[in-house]
Amino acid sequence: MLHSILKDGERIDQLFSNDVQIIQNKEVFSYSIDSVLLSRFPKLPSRGLIVDLCSGNGAVGLFASTQTKASIVEIELQPRLADMGQRSIRLNQLEDQVTMICDDLTNLLQHVPRSGVDIILCNPPYFKSSQTSKKNLSEHYLLARHEITTNLAKICQVARHALKSNGRLAMVHRPDRFLEILDTLKTNGLAPKRLQFVYPKLGKEANMLLIEAIKDGSMEGLKILPPLIVHKDNGDYTDTIKEIYFGAKDKAFKN
Amino acid sequence: MLHSILKDGERIDQLFSNDVQIIQNKEVFSYSIDSVLLSRFPKLPSRGLIVDLCSGNGAVGLFASTQTKASIVEIELQPRLADMGQRSIRLNQLEDQVTMICDDLTNLLQHVPRSGVDIILCNPPYFKSSQTSKKNLSEHYLLARHEITTNLAKICQVARHALKSNGRLAMVHRPDRFLEILDTLKTNGLAPKRLQFVYPKLGKEANMLLIEAIKDGSMEGLKILPPLIVHKDNGDYTDTIKEIYFGAKDKAFKN
Repeated sequence: MLHSILKDGERIDQLFSNDVQIIQNKEVFSYSIDSVLLSRFPKLPSRGLIVDLCSGNGAVGLFASTQTKASIVEIELQPRLADMGQRSIRLNQLEDQVTMICDDLTNLLQHVPRSGVDIILCNPPYFKSSQTSKKNLSEHYLLARHEITTNLAKICQVARHALKSNGRLAMVHRPDRFLEILDTLKTNGLAPKRLQFVYPKLGKEANMLLIEAIKDGSMEGLKILPPLIVHKDNGDYTDTIKEIYFGAKDKAFKN
Repeated sequence: MLHSILKDGERIDQLFSNDVQIIQNKEVFSYSIDSVLLSRFPKLPSRGLIVDLCSGNGAVGLFASTQTKASIVEIELQPRLADMGQRSIRLNQLEDQVTMICDDLTNLLQHVPRSGVDIILCNPPYFKSSQTSKKNLSEHYLLARHEITTNLAKICQVARHALKSNGRLAMVHRPDRFLEILDTLKTNGLAPKRLQFVYPKLGKEANMLLIEAIKDGSMEGLKILPPLIVHKDNGDYTDTIKEIYFGAKDKAFKN
């Protein structure tokens, strides 16, 4: 079976904490810690409709599937990545719950009802298209990491139209774009409610942030969740991260 | 000497890490960890002009005095608190460096040159005037903690006029007003550059933030400094906080 589901250069990675298997190809695309953290960040509705925007090889939506019975729609522009995601859905026998759509995210409303989505998860391209030495990147990574085919403004606009009132957008991004993220959310009627910074080590600056915003919410009452520290001083994962990767309970997200 | 400098109910507290002595009165006003952290947060210019807005009994400016040869102007509306601060200046023999002015902060430009200040430190009232059960507070604490005689907008306006171009406003505040703080800074041409969240314990939500904004700066390049954790799980101060209170080097601020 594995032979038939894998293409050249691909392998299967498993997130042990939830037994989900993800088809990856290091040359093309593979998920990283960002996707794992994002999938654990928001409290997911037990039923309803979840969208994974910029889904890449589908990791975020597949990880999320273990926490909910909601339908999950993944949308990814790149056929090569969407195809990996499609096969991962089959591999995990999640065809009844998870759907992969290969399309531009601006077409999302052709696939889900307007104002019909409970929560959108998004691990978007982090870098502005100008902000790079792009030479050593494959085209697949280039599009996944840089705002070439989409950008923050488009993502927030799509979210505004697709989300129910009080529906939520949960996103992972980089701190150096934090002020722009807040502005763009606000412009689109999305009120930040939960914010968590991720630090590579305890004494280092944050290199990642997780943010959850609510459609039509008030701009008051933002919570800054406990800091999420990835590595101990000796380079090992912290207990929190180990638990996220390998199972058992963690406290950092229970807020 | 102590008898002559202290009034009824007052005592002298000492910050051991820098040997500064502060006249306090628990019934009237005493500084807390916020002031200590604020005084350590920004990199101070070695010379020039520093203002401590909403200075209370003068603790922030007095702590800052040990790190710089700049002139320090403290401005406090309440005569009772300004008087304590004035006597602390004498107590520490800092009359040549530190000046206490008892006035409304909107009059700051009567005391310092317009566009002449290198850095403004501010530990403002945290709470909106509406946001309280004020019954058990003395009038002194009430004015120090609630936006009755001043507010965030006034503080940022004053900062804009008093600061040099590229001068900085460093403020301590509460996370639940974070979005409003960012908006108010932006409205006044103050670009946030350094942000540090303070957490009571590692697994808890932030309950304080330190923010530094630069006048006429670009809105890009915000840094999220390492998290500042106040207590260990067992309730003791963390090593970082112990060092801040009792001396020795700390890493958390060296960014």
